[in-house]
Amino acid sequence: MKEFDLHAVTLNDTFWQNYQKLVKEETIPYQYQVLNDALDVDVQAEREDASLPAGKSHALENFRIAAKQNDGEHFGWFFQDSDVYKWIESAAYSLINQKDEALIIVVDEVVELLAAAQEEDGYLNTFFQLTRPELKYRQLYFSHELYCAGHLVEAAIAYDLATGKKQLLEIAEKNVQNIMQHFGREAGQIQGADGHQEIELALVRLFEHTDKEIYLDLAAFFLEVRGEDPHFYAQEIAENITQGLSTEQPTVDLMYLQAYDQPKHQREAKGHAVRMLYMASGMAKVAQHTKDQALTEACVAIWKDIAHKKMYVTGGVGGTVHGEAFIGAYDLPNDTMYCETCASIALVQFSFEMFKLTQDHQYLDVLTRALYNSVLSGASIDGKQFFYVNPLEVMPDSCHHNPDKGHVKTQRPDWLGCACCPPNFARMISSLQRFVYTREGDTLFINLFAASRLTCAEQFTIQQFGNFPFDDQVTISYSGIAQKIVLYKPKWLESVQIESEQVWQETRETIIFEATTKIQAKITFQQPVQILRANPLVNQDINQVAIQRGPFIYCLEEADNGKGISQCRLPIDQVNFRVTENQKLWSTTLEISFDGYQSQRWTQEALYLPMKEEYSSKNWRMIPYHLWGNRGEGEMRVWIPLSTSFNQKI
Amino acid sequence: MKEFDLHAVTLNDTFWQNYQKLVKEETIPYQYQVLNDALDVDVQAEREDASLPAGKSHALENFRIAAKQNDGEHFGWFFQDSDVYKWIESAAYSLINQKDEALIIVVDEVVELLAAAQEEDGYLNTFFQLTRPELKYRQLYFSHELYCAGHLVEAAIAYDLATGKKQLLEIAEKNVQNIMQHFGREAGQIQGADGHQEIELALVRLFEHTDKEIYLDLAAFFLEVRGEDPHFYAQEIAENITQGLSTEQPTVDLMYLQAYDQPKHQREAKGHAVRMLYMASGMAKVAQHTKDQALTEACVAIWKDIAHKKMYVTGGVGGTVHGEAFIGAYDLPNDTMYCETCASIALVQFSFEMFKLTQDHQYLDVLTRALYNSVLSGASIDGKQFFYVNPLEVMPDSCHHNPDKGHVKTQRPDWLGCACCPPNFARMISSLQRFVYTREGDTLFINLFAASRLTCAEQFTIQQFGNFPFDDQVTISYSGIAQKIVLYKPKWLESVQIESEQVWQETRETIIFEATTKIQAKITFQQPVQILRANPLVNQDINQVAIQRGPFIYCLEEADNGKGISQCRLPIDQVNFRVTENQKLWSTTLEISFDGYQSQRWTQEALYLPMKEEYSSKNWRMIPYHLWGNRGEGEMRVWIPLSTSFNQKI
Repeated sequence: MKEFDLHAVTLNDTFWQNYQKLVKEETIPYQYQVLNDALDVDVQAEREDASLPAGKSHALENFRIAAKQNDGEHFGWFFQDSDVYKWIESAAYSLINQKDEALIIVVDEVVELLAAAQEEDGYLNTFFQLTRPELKYRQLYFSHELYCAGHLVEAAIAYDLATGKKQLLEIAEKNVQNIMQHFGREAGQIQGADGHQEIELALVRLFEHTDKEIYLDLAAFFLEVRGEDPHFYAQEIAENITQGLSTEQPTVDLMYLQAYDQPKHQREAKGHAVRMLYMASGMAKVAQHTKDQALTEACVAIWKDIAHKKMYVTGGVGGTVHGEAFIGAYDLPNDTMYCETCASIALVQFSFEMFKLTQDHQYLDVLTRALYNSVLSGASIDGKQFFYVNPLEVMPDSCHHNPDKGHVKTQRPDWLGCACCPPNFARMISSLQRFVYTREGDTLFINLFAASRLTCAEQFTIQQFGNFPFDDQVTISYSGIAQKIVLYKPKWLESVQIESEQVWQETRETIIFEATTKIQAKITFQQPVQILRANPLVNQDINQVAIQRGPFIYCLEEADNGKGISQCRLPIDQVNFRVTENQKLWSTTLEISFDGYQSQRWTQEALYLPMKEEYSSKNWRMIPYHLWGNRGEGEMRVWIPLSTSFNQKI
Repeated sequence: MKEFDLHAVTLNDTFWQNYQKLVKEETIPYQYQVLNDALDVDVQAEREDASLPAGKSHALENFRIAAKQNDGEHFGWFFQDSDVYKWIESAAYSLINQKDEALIIVVDEVVELLAAAQEEDGYLNTFFQLTRPELKYRQLYFSHELYCAGHLVEAAIAYDLATGKKQLLEIAEKNVQNIMQHFGREAGQIQGADGHQEIELALVRLFEHTDKEIYLDLAAFFLEVRGEDPHFYAQEIAENITQGLSTEQPTVDLMYLQAYDQPKHQREAKGHAVRMLYMASGMAKVAQHTKDQALTEACVAIWKDIAHKKMYVTGGVGGTVHGEAFIGAYDLPNDTMYCETCASIALVQFSFEMFKLTQDHQYLDVLTRALYNSVLSGASIDGKQFFYVNPLEVMPDSCHHNPDKGHVKTQRPDWLGCACCPPNFARMISSLQRFVYTREGDTLFINLFAASRLTCAEQFTIQQFGNFPFDDQVTISYSGIAQKIVLYKPKWLESVQIESEQVWQETRETIIFEATTKIQAKITFQQPVQILRANPLVNQDINQVAIQRGPFIYCLEEADNGKGISQCRLPIDQVNFRVTENQKLWSTTLEISFDGYQSQRWTQEALYLPMKEEYSSKNWRMIPYHLWGNRGEGEMRVWIPLSTSFNQKI
C-alpha cells in the first residue's frame, strides 16, 4: 500500500487545520528561536537529575561551532543535532501546506550551515566532531549517530518534496554514503547497529524517494545485524578501553535497545519504547517492499502485544521512567508511567505502516487513539509548551512530594534539555494528511474522516466534507477512474446510515464501493458517549471507567470541577451525559458533563474507619484529554471511579 | 509514665510466646551464624543497585580485623557494626525470658571482641577505624558513628539487665565519654548531630538505666543542635575537601535527615522514615524527663501527621524508595511504597513513648496496628528470612518487569546487605512484654491484652488470662497495694461486658478501677470482622476496602485463591464473613472467608471495551497480613475492590 504525495492532499478539516495553523504560525517560529537560544525560556531537564542537560538548547550553535563559524564547546545531548533536523522537516511540511518565502530563506540558511559543518567524507554529527572525533561510529551503544542521520534523511526528503531544492538531500545522501562505507558485511566494516533505531525507517523512505535499492538493502542490513552478535556492544566498549580511546563503561542492557535477539525473532514490546517503535516501523516498512515474512510475523506479534496488553487508553505507551520503557503485560500505572509524546507519535507511525503492510483496519483503531489523544496532549494550545511525559492522573501535591513522580511534570515546560518531543510533534502535525488516503493497486483507501480533497494527477478527485468528529455526518464525493474505494469506519461509530445512489457493502470495519467511477455518499452516524472498561487484568483501572466520545478520551480537570476530582463517583447504572460545545479552550471542543456523586470528606481526622462511603450530588465536567493542562497547575484524571453503594447517597 | 523491669513481667500469651520462642530458638542462632559468615545464605542488596553491599555480612569479621585478630578489609555498610549490637540486644532480652548459659558464653565472646576492637580513648566504629581513621566524627552527614553508638548503648543496657555483667556497659559508657569529649558547646567541640538519629533515644535509656544526668543532657543537646546551623553538614564536607581529607561531595538534603530546622520546630513527618521516627522517639523520651513543652508539641504534631495522613492500614510508613522516605499527605501507593520493617518498629517505639509522655490512649491504637501487622510481616514463620519492604499489593510479574518496583521483593531474602531490619525485629519481639504494663504515680496501666503476670516487688501481682485476640474474653486478676488500674480497650472491640465484684468505670478507650486492692474481672467482647474504608483523600484506595479482625489486617493470597486475586470483588451490601481456625500456617490463626464475586476475564483480546463488568461467584479466603509470603511466590493484596454493579452477576 502506498501513500500519496503530500501535495495532492488538501486538508480543509477545521480541527486539523487549526492544529496545522498553530504549528505553522506559532510552533515552528518559536522552535527556531529556541534552537537558536534567542528566547529567554525555561529549558527543563526531562526528569529530576542534576547531571542532565538543561538551561538552553544550543542545537544550532553546535553546528556553527562544528562549521568553525563560531568558537565554543558542544552543549547538550549527543543527539542534539536531531532537534534541528526535525525542525527542518516540520518547516518543510508546513511549506507544502502553505507557501512562505521567508521561511524558505531561514531553512536555506540552516541547510548552508549543515553543509558547512559536514566533513569532507560526509560524516556529520556535531557531538562526535567536537568532543570525541576518535570515537566516531565506535560508541554505537549510546552514540545516536545513525539515529541523527535518520532524522537528517527524513528532513532532506521533506525539504526536497516541499521546495525541489536538492542541497539538503545531497548532504543526507553523502552522510548515508559515509555510513555505507563504515557499516556492512565486508571485511573491516562494522557489523552492528546504532543503539537508537531510526536510520532503518529513514532509509526505506529514502529508497521510496530516490528509488535507489542500496538504501533499502542498508535498512534491511541494520535490521538483520541487530542482536545477531550479543557481544557486539560489550566488545566495542572493551576495545575502546583497550585502545585507550575511552574510559566509559556503560552497563550493556540488550533489552533496553532491543538487541537481545534479531528483530525478526522478537515477539514482545520490550525496553525503551521509542526505540522499540521506531525499529518496528522500520521493520514494517522493509517488509512492505521485501515481503519478508519473518519481519512481518514479528511486527504483527509486537503490535498485538502493545495494543492488547501494553497501551494506555490515551494511546500512550511506556510504563516506567527507568529506561523510558515498556513494562509487563496489563501493567499500566496511571500516575508514574512515562507515556512519552515521541512514543505515541511512533505508535501512530508503526500502526500506519502495519496498515500499509497488511490492509488490516485494526491498525487504524490504534492510530486514531494515539493521534487524537496522547500525541496532541504533547503540546499546549499556544503551541509553545510541551510535555515529554503524558500522565493519566495528576495530583500536583503528589508530583511535588513523591520522588517516584519526579518525571511527571504538572505543567508543560517551555522546552526540554532532551527536546526530542517538541519538533516530533510539529513534524507529525504538519504532515498528517499523509494518513488520510492510501492506495494499493486499484483500491483507494480512506483512512480518516477529515474534510479534505485528494486530486490524483488526471485520474480522480475525491473529497470529504463535514466537521468530523464534532458533527455526526460525513459526505464523500468521488469522480474519476473506476476503482474500489474502501472507507474505514471508526470503531466508536454507531447507527451508521449511508445514503448513496451507488452500491456499497458494509463490513464491521469498512464501507466498500466496488469498481466505481463516481460516488456521492452521505454517511450519518451517532457518536455516543462511551463508558470504557479496562481489561480486568489491568490492576490499576479496577472499578473505574474511561469516557470516550468520538476519537477523544475525556478527563476531569480541577479547572472545571475544583479540587478533589478523585472524589468523583460515576453512577454507572443511571448516568446521563450532556455534550455541549465549549469554544473557550480550543475552537470547537465538546465538553461532557454528567450528574454524579462526590465522595464526602470525613469530619473526623482519621485514615481508616469502619464506615460506608457517603456521597453528595455533583455535576461533573470533562474535557478532551488532549486539552488538559492548559489552565494552570491542577488535578487531572482520566479513569473515573464508579459509585459502589447508591443507598449511601446523602 | 514508667516501664517495669522486664524481669517482672512473664508473658504466657500463646501468640506472643510463639513469636518469642521462634526468635529465641531460630532467629538468634541463625543471625549469629550469618553475622559470622558461617552459613551459605543469599545475602541480597535491598534494592536493584550493583553498587550496594551484598553477598555476605562480614559484620563480626570487621570487628576481628579492627581488633587486629584477623587480617582483611572492612566490608559492608558504614553502619554494619549496628547489626552486631542489635543481635546482642536481642540475645540479652531472650536471656531475660529464658536462661541459656551457652548463649551467654557466645555473647561474652562477642563482648570480648568489642573490647578488643575499641580504641584506647573509647572510640569504636570499625568502618572508620579500618578505612578512614582521619575522618572520625568528620563525616556526620552520612557516617552513622553515633547511630552505631546508640545501638551499642541499647545492647549494653539489655545485657546488663539480663546478666548483671558490666563489661559491655563499660564499653558503651567509654564510647559515650569519647563522644562527649568531641561534641558539645565548648570551644573546639563539634556543634552538630549524626546524620542518622538513634543516639538520642539511647542516651535517655542510658540515663534511665544509670541515673547519670549527663546522658540526658547529651541527648537534649543533640536534639537542640540538629538543624540549628543549616550549613553545618555542607561546611563539614567542604572542610574535609579543603584539608585534603576527602574528595566525597554528597548532595546535602537537610529534609532527608530532618535537619532543615530544629526538631522542636518540626511539625510534619518528612524525609527518611526510620531517622524521622528514631528522632521523634528520642524527642518524646527527653520530654518525658525534662517536661520540655516545645519538644512535646513537636512530637504531638508529627505523630498526628503520620497517624492521620501518612500511615498504611498495616502500620507501614514511608511511601517511596527514594530516600526511604515519607511523601505527601494522603499519598499512599500500595505497590511502590517502602514500608520498611524498621520504620514500623520505630513507629511502635515512638507511639509507646508518646503514650508514656501523655497517657493518651490513642497512641496505643497505632502501636497495636503496626505491631501486629507491618512489624510481624518483616519475618518469615521459620524466623530465618526477612523483608525490608512490606508492600500492600504484590503482583510478581509486575515486580519482575517494572523497575519502579525493583525494591519490592516478592519473597523474604535470607539476609540483606543492609541488614538493619532482621535484628531490629528480633530485639523488638524478644522484649515486647515491655509494652504490656506501665505505671505513673499510683496508677497501673494495662496497655495490651496478653496473658501474662506482673509481680512488682512486694507491692502487687497482676495477671491476665485468655487467648487474646483469638478468643473474645480476657480475665484480670489483681491483688496488692491500693492503686488505680486503667485497662486499654482496643478500638475494634464491640459489645464489651465486664463481670466483676469490684466497681469500675468505662470510658470510650478504657476500663478504670479506682484505688483498689483486689480485682477479679472477666471482660467479654466481640471482635467482628470490620470492613475498613480509607479516608476519601487517599487516591490509591478508592472503591476498595480493607478487612480487619481484632488487631489483624487481612490479605488475599494466591496460595489460597489461585491467580487473579485482583479480580476479587467484595459485595459490600450483603457480605457474610466466616471466621475459621487455620493451624497450618501458624499456631492459632484465624482465616476469614466470604462469598464474593470474581470479575470475569474477557474472551476478546482487548484492553478497552465499552462493556459492563461481569462477575461469577467465588468464595475468597483471607489470612492475616503478617503471615503473607510464607508459601512461595504469589500474588497478594490488602485492599479488596468492591463490586460495583450487582445486576451484572452471571
